[in-house]
Amino acid sequence: IGEEVWQDLGEGFVQEYYSRFDNTNRMELGNLYSPEACLTWEGSPYQGREAIASKLSLPFKTIKHIITEQDFQPTIDGCILIMVFGQLKVDDDPPMAFHQVFMLKSQNCAWACTNDVFRLGIHNIPV
Amino acid sequence: IGEEVWQDLGEGFVQEYYSRFDNTNRMELGNLYSPEACLTWEGSPYQGREAIASKLSLPFKTIKHIITEQDFQPTIDGCILIMVFGQLKVDDDPPMAFHQVFMLKSQNCAWACTNDVFRLGIHNIPV
Repeated sequence: IGEEVWQDLGEGFVQEYYSRFDNTNRMELGNLYSPEACLTWEGSPYQGREAIASKLSLPFKTIKHIITEQDFQPTIDGCILIMVFGQLKVDDDPPMAFHQVFMLKSQNCAWACTNDVFRLGIHNIPV
Repeated sequence: IGEEVWQDLGEGFVQEYYSRFDNTNRMELGNLYSPEACLTWEGSPYQGREAIASKLSLPFKTIKHIITEQDFQPTIDGCILIMVFGQLKVDDDPPMAFHQVFMLKSQNCAWACTNDVFRLGIHNIPV
């Protein structure tokens, strides 16, 4: 796949993912994952679309993600690796830095997220 | 590959990578990458073992990486996805947060890094 293609696919996924997260029922996020996808959320593992969608149905009223940086790379297996940095604001809490990695793979003619690693930045502040 | 195996492989790689970075000639880092590996360093792309090793020969006297968190996931193509958070200290500068993602793949019976995305945390501090 050419450079513009994976860049565009990656950017499209990031936009769609956080748009669904912030604006719609978070259960709909599950459709962006492959059936056997892996999520590691703050060090805890979740496997499979249903387990992931359930985990992402987090108990807050409003959330807003702001993307600071996003990097994309193709892999030799035809996947797209995405690294995202940003800040998220939950309800009336102060904003928190977060970091998230996705891997996308084309399966049955559609791109799906097979891997997702999420960490808040609160653990990584130099003192 | 079983869970202990990819976890051990991932941890071994992380230890070896930052040990070489901090303690030896950084040109030796090149041997940890596959010949066609991709590095995205603060948004700039480098492709191939030689270009990467050359980029990593950075102009400072001493560097020390401290790992805060590391997450590992297997991929459906038999790769290992690694997300690292930590702090690095260069010469007499104050410590800086950094974030790095690696993908490892077994090629010719040895594990090599095929993808590397690096970002300093300085761009992602909530205000």
